[in-house]
Amino acid sequence: MRRIAVEPLTRQGFLPFGQVIEAHPDAERRIINRGTTERFHDLARVETGGGRPTINIFRGKAHTLPVIVARLERHPKGSQSFMPLGGQRFLVVVAPDQAGTPGMPRAFLTAPGQGVSYPAGQWHSALLALDGIGDFLVVDLGDVEDNLEEFELAEPVTVGGG
Amino acid sequence: MRRIAVEPLTRQGFLPFGQVIEAHPDAERRIINRGTTERFHDLARVETGGGRPTINIFRGKAHTLPVIVARLERHPKGSQSFMPLGGQRFLVVVAPDQAGTPGMPRAFLTAPGQGVSYPAGQWHSALLALDGIGDFLVVDLGDVEDNLEEFELAEPVTVGGG
Repeated sequence: MRRIAVEPLTRQGFLPFGQVIEAHPDAERRIINRGTTERFHDLARVETGGGRPTINIFRGKAHTLPVIVARLERHPKGSQSFMPLGGQRFLVVVAPDQAGTPGMPRAFLTAPGQGVSYPAGQWHSALLALDGIGDFLVVDLGDVEDNLEEFELAEPVTVGGG
Repeated sequence: MRRIAVEPLTRQGFLPFGQVIEAHPDAERRIINRGTTERFHDLARVETGGGRPTINIFRGKAHTLPVIVARLERHPKGSQSFMPLGGQRFLVVVAPDQAGTPGMPRAFLTAPGQGVSYPAGQWHSALLALDGIGDFLVVDLGDVEDNLEEFELAEPVTVGGG
């Protein structure tokens, strides 16, 4: 079984795979509500192809490292954004697309409070909550047909540990 | 000055003003990711008029009760959804529309972890975080013209206290 290391999640490092959602100093910041609110503007690229996005809560089972990932999935018709609702960390496993199937996976560990957004078509693992059962706000394109592709890896990867 | 009481936020009581976003037992629940994730599906009605929604973080200044509300606002072209990122409570002040201006305001106090979504055109106050400075994930239609109307109340309302 292949083993891959866990990398810290940074906006720069994650650029090939999507956006990191966090209140970061380089964001476009707007002071609104007569000075009582700071808006960190447009932190993820929501793609719906003109369809209506849904707001959902995903309650993810707790995982502990090392985690074995045997399959990846992608949503060809829309983006999918995950934000932890209690600051909890999670593991983000993604892979580049290679002619319609996932290439070599990479794994990123979020810092507390970081979320991620996957563009349409981005290969990623199922939700891998750490730190106990976790609730995540998820924005995606719900209830459209043919918006889930799954791929069983020829060889599962072990993420972390070792 | 008018004083209004603070009501607990419930899905039923909030129906005239929008949706409460929470992982509630009456939601459509789907077991996904081969049993490792429970999806509470489509908890808010996102309205964008075909435009692209944005995902933002609003960092709200801390308020304490009683709070004086002197103006309300609304977004005619899209919904706006607020979800606390640390479970923190906030105050939701809304009013029915009466011929283009807000009627008598009502105030709701969220339970820890509850969020709300306002439909397009719903009069509401600026973000009123309680429990300290709070970060909220906000899904709305950003960067469209003429999507903010503000209304100065003839008589401000005092919310809570007394």
